[in-house]
Amino acid sequence: MEINPKNNQKPILGVMGPGDDCPPEVGNTAFEIGQLIAENGWVTLSGGRNSGVMDAVCEGAKSRNGVTIGILPGNDTNEASEYLDYPIVTGMGSARNNINVLTADIIVACGIGAGTASEISLAVKAGKPVVLLNAGKTAIQFFKSLDQRLLKQADSPTEAIELIKKYLGES
Amino acid sequence: MEINPKNNQKPILGVMGPGDDCPPEVGNTAFEIGQLIAENGWVTLSGGRNSGVMDAVCEGAKSRNGVTIGILPGNDTNEASEYLDYPIVTGMGSARNNINVLTADIIVACGIGAGTASEISLAVKAGKPVVLLNAGKTAIQFFKSLDQRLLKQADSPTEAIELIKKYLGES
Amino acid sequence: MEINPKNNQKPILGVMGPGDDCPPEVGNTAFEIGQLIAENGWVTLSGGRNSGVMDAVCEGAKSRNGVTIGILPGNDTNEASEYLDYPIVTGMGSARNNINVLTADIIVACGIGAGTASEISLAVKAGKPVVLLNAGKTAIQFFKSLDQRLLKQADSPTEAIELIKKYLGES
Amino acid sequence: MEINPKNNQKPILGVMGPGDDCPPEVGNTAFEIGQLIAENGWVTLSGGRNSGVMDAVCEGAKSRNGVTIGILPGNDTNEASEYLDYPIVTGMGSARNNINVLTADIIVACGIGAGTASEISLAVKAGKPVVLLNAGKTAIQFFKSLDQRLLKQADSPTEAIELIKKYLGES
Repeated sequence: MEINPKNNQKPILGVMGPGDDCPPEVGNTAFEIGQLIAENGWVTLSGGRNSGVMDAVCEGAKSRNGVTIGILPGNDTNEASEYLDYPIVTGMGSARNNINVLTADIIVACGIGAGTASEISLAVKAGKPVVLLNAGKTAIQFFKSLDQRLLKQADSPTEAIELIKKYLGES
Repeated sequence: MEINPKNNQKPILGVMGPGDDCPPEVGNTAFEIGQLIAENGWVTLSGGRNSGVMDAVCEGAKSRNGVTIGILPGNDTNEASEYLDYPIVTGMGSARNNINVLTADIIVACGIGAGTASEISLAVKAGKPVVLLNAGKTAIQFFKSLDQRLLKQADSPTEAIELIKKYLGES
Repeated sequence: MEINPKNNQKPILGVMGPGDDCPPEVGNTAFEIGQLIAENGWVTLSGGRNSGVMDAVCEGAKSRNGVTIGILPGNDTNEASEYLDYPIVTGMGSARNNINVLTADIIVACGIGAGTASEISLAVKAGKPVVLLNAGKTAIQFFKSLDQRLLKQADSPTEAIELIKKYLGES
Repeated sequence: MEINPKNNQKPILGVMGPGDDCPPEVGNTAFEIGQLIAENGWVTLSGGRNSGVMDAVCEGAKSRNGVTIGILPGNDTNEASEYLDYPIVTGMGSARNNINVLTADIIVACGIGAGTASEISLAVKAGKPVVLLNAGKTAIQFFKSLDQRLLKQADSPTEAIELIKKYLGES
């Protein structure tokens, strides 16, 4: 399976993960993933809020001059991460999770929360590849039971990037 | 935790489950759940399509003169179950899964598919109780890891109804 | 142009109009329209809030034992009209206006506000017939310039009902 | 009334207008507006399709090295303008019009179609300023009757840009 963004658009990587209750080490991984996405010239997309993985991945991407897009659940940019270049204001709460998934070429799930689980599930429904990072055994087993082909597991940010490069035909 | 629908509105039970690839025994369980929901005077809500659990639960509910609402993903009623009283046409694909969850007082997951998994996850995110029926061990373990309190497991339609009655303060 | 709801589903009439700043006479018209919809055995659909046309049309319909559905913009039923049988909770703000339009077989615009204007426009976009009631000259002229065929004007609730019956092939 | 985008984010200008049935002169105006937006260092946002104003404004912006975002109604980028940097895939049809409006700091309506009329109305509902370009007398009169304060009329792209600069406090 190979992903080809249209024309000369840059690939969009959707990085999903817990917000307010994000463990610090998951935030660190998200920051690192953001850096690597930016270094590869790809676009970082997240849920856009100034919290947890959404914030950390954008901070990482901006620290390497990457482009960041956030798909916000609220009616304005009050809760937006300060590391967003382009805040998209949906006003539709968690229903925006489906936009995250449809807009991203590939999804990286960094840690697991209820919102993240919905995004992985919606990605499978939409036929999008998902790379699981920092996921527990049960989560990996469960999501692979939904779709063996679309779900891959990575043990580190570097390994996740290698998987993404394969999908993009860049390796 | 007790659920109290506003005023004298009837409780709305959201029954979610696989569509086109629904195993026959899961369809049978959904039909039976629909019957029991109707017999208790509650409203059946589903994803509304003429397929799998969505169709079977509505057929069951109508066989006992229950009321059925379907939250359709498409732009019209072409794919609607013929057992729907009130087809709600959203035109927003899987983003409508969040409407299923927000509208239902309690969610019953009958079997597991990618769409169902997104709805269980969105329900947890929205703080709604979920009863899992016909779910495998891994699924139960995974969703309980998201939220121990909101997730209950039932081994039969009758047992699911008992759990629902407790939530509604009717037992 | 004739509208045929699927199977034996009852026609759904979407009645749209101003909320918090609704003039009393527009509310009275909405109440009367709700009564007439119910007397004809049709379903009343509105934006669902306890305010203006949304509330008045549902109150009218319930006073004649009609069925009422509300497509709510918020995340719960806190602002729901007490005259709703079936509150649909979308959590997506004004984006739910498109669901109002797609779900209704015919739209009745009762007075004009910004939200109403968006619903009339979305109805034209979706190819749905609209009956304008209590609309000013400029509004009528503007909307007819968008689509001459889909827009009809009625000078009273009774006249609106006559137009609806023609669309439904009931006259 | 002054608009201040958060932090150091660039202002986002939402340019709305007819798609498939767009008159050539409206397309030319949209192209010119796109050029001017880019020259001012602002971001161009449109409905994203390869048609009418959506396409022309993005082509104009890219001809001056501007940044372009498109909020697409479909499930993928098949119908996307080739002049988009960042296609946002919503899969929610015309309900995405509300996202256009909430995301833009200021809306420019270039010509009028049913979709455009819904966006102007939703902008008024959301309290966003709208600049009307190439609008007929009736349209201007109607929309000003919805909100005198938020609606401004411009007779040329240059005049529209002057109005925008005032809103942004840049003149």
